[in-house]
Amino acid sequence: VSHGSSWKTVTIAGVGLIGGSFALALRKAGYGGKIIGVSSPPAIEAALARGVIDLALPLEQAATQSDVIYLAQPIERIIETLETIDPYVRPGTLITDAGSTKTQIVEQAQESVRRGRFVGGHPMAGKELRGVAAAEAGLFQGRPYILTARDPELEHWVAAIGSKIVILDAREHDRLVAFTSHLPQLISTALAASIPIQLGAERVVGPAALDLTRLALSPYEIWKDIFATNSTAIDAALETFIERLENLRSRLKDPVIESEFDLAAAAALRLRQGN
Amino acid sequence: VSHGSSWKTVTIAGVGLIGGSFALALRKAGYGGKIIGVSSPPAIEAALARGVIDLALPLEQAATQSDVIYLAQPIERIIETLETIDPYVRPGTLITDAGSTKTQIVEQAQESVRRGRFVGGHPMAGKELRGVAAAEAGLFQGRPYILTARDPELEHWVAAIGSKIVILDAREHDRLVAFTSHLPQLISTALAASIPIQLGAERVVGPAALDLTRLALSPYEIWKDIFATNSTAIDAALETFIERLENLRSRLKDPVIESEFDLAAAAALRLRQGN
Repeated sequence: VSHGSSWKTVTIAGVGLIGGSFALALRKAGYGGKIIGVSSPPAIEAALARGVIDLALPLEQAATQSDVIYLAQPIERIIETLETIDPYVRPGTLITDAGSTKTQIVEQAQESVRRGRFVGGHPMAGKELRGVAAAEAGLFQGRPYILTARDPELEHWVAAIGSKIVILDAREHDRLVAFTSHLPQLISTALAASIPIQLGAERVVGPAALDLTRLALSPYEIWKDIFATNSTAIDAALETFIERLENLRSRLKDPVIESEFDLAAAAALRLRQGN
Repeated sequence: VSHGSSWKTVTIAGVGLIGGSFALALRKAGYGGKIIGVSSPPAIEAALARGVIDLALPLEQAATQSDVIYLAQPIERIIETLETIDPYVRPGTLITDAGSTKTQIVEQAQESVRRGRFVGGHPMAGKELRGVAAAEAGLFQGRPYILTARDPELEHWVAAIGSKIVILDAREHDRLVAFTSHLPQLISTALAASIPIQLGAERVVGPAALDLTRLALSPYEIWKDIFATNSTAIDAALETFIERLENLRSRLKDPVIESEFDLAAAAALRLRQGN
């Protein structure tokens, strides 16, 4: 199937859950070109065995022959790659990424990417399992996919893999996900750590506690870089949230907090209508 | 089916989701006696139409002929009923309830119940829909059911409807559910109210924000009495949680918070193993 796409060779740097799923999704959407994987030896072995990539190369070699370089590494690694990749790419090569924060990544790209051109990306998709073994073509289906700039061909493929394209400035993205993703993680971790297990709290657990502590199962490893690269926005989101919570706390027996419940219910409903 | 139970007539006061489900669950578990409903005219009409109750009576009349009185009303209403019901019951009548907080209810019963005997209860079950129309026999299946004292026959029926019996002192119950139920509600409400919808946050919503704002859809009406009757324990739970969150906030870029993530993940896992 041809979509009139000029993409003939795509390099995926970091062939884990997201990078592997993007490769599988591209194929399923009709991409007929080559897919080169750049990753650790065990990830490459697994990706080749599953047919997720066509071949493996060191990054610099892959860069010289690619139309697109898709960085699906941890955030700090993406920043390091952006610092050094540009001399190896052909002029006009599209470099994009899948990092969960965007401001520092876009800033690094503005500083370092000259021959190539960079469009930041953030697919709002994931699951509890990690690694290329968990990759699936349908991972992005129906999920928002943020892009920090317009690019017709990238938008074509992002739409083709089933995502909803959202164009957002990097700083705006980071401010919003601080509320919708990073704050929920910190809340879940703080809540789970607060529940008095030593007093047998697990005996009275209902759906509420289970829902709110699910994120607390996430390892710190995947959050470290997010906190490091979005601390200002996260701090502001925490401040807003703690103020709201202290307000409820100080008026616990005052019926005036009904208006806060109404406001929250309307917001929760609105979040669901967007999905 | 006879279980050697002495229960011949059970009165359900408040034939809504919980009261109606308890009636249906009793029947399904083999209870062959009479079920009297005490509720508002529309609830009674719906309950009779669905066959949830056998007949309807005013509370005082129902009390004079019941072996068991099951109070499934709002908490403040349960407390009012306990203040006035005792003169109408036969000696030894079991009075139990399904209120979400226990300390004030048990204190009222200790003061007012003389002819009858009181055992507090709290089925950790529910769903988003309310009213007898949403009642179902399986609502308590697999869920914890807290009792504030032992009673062999009540325990027999609670086990028969599929619940896991947990015997807990009223104050201990209130302290634990402040963490596992009341704190999650306040967190969800404060989070939903904090998310900047006016900036288009719904465009970047993923599973995290959806999970954590689900409770925010609950109306204040069902929480009013809970906050009024458990404010001390809720305030203490909020204090613990906010301290934990402020600790994470002040060390956002410090790898030392990995230990907090580990602690939280272990607790979240433990909550799931108890279930």
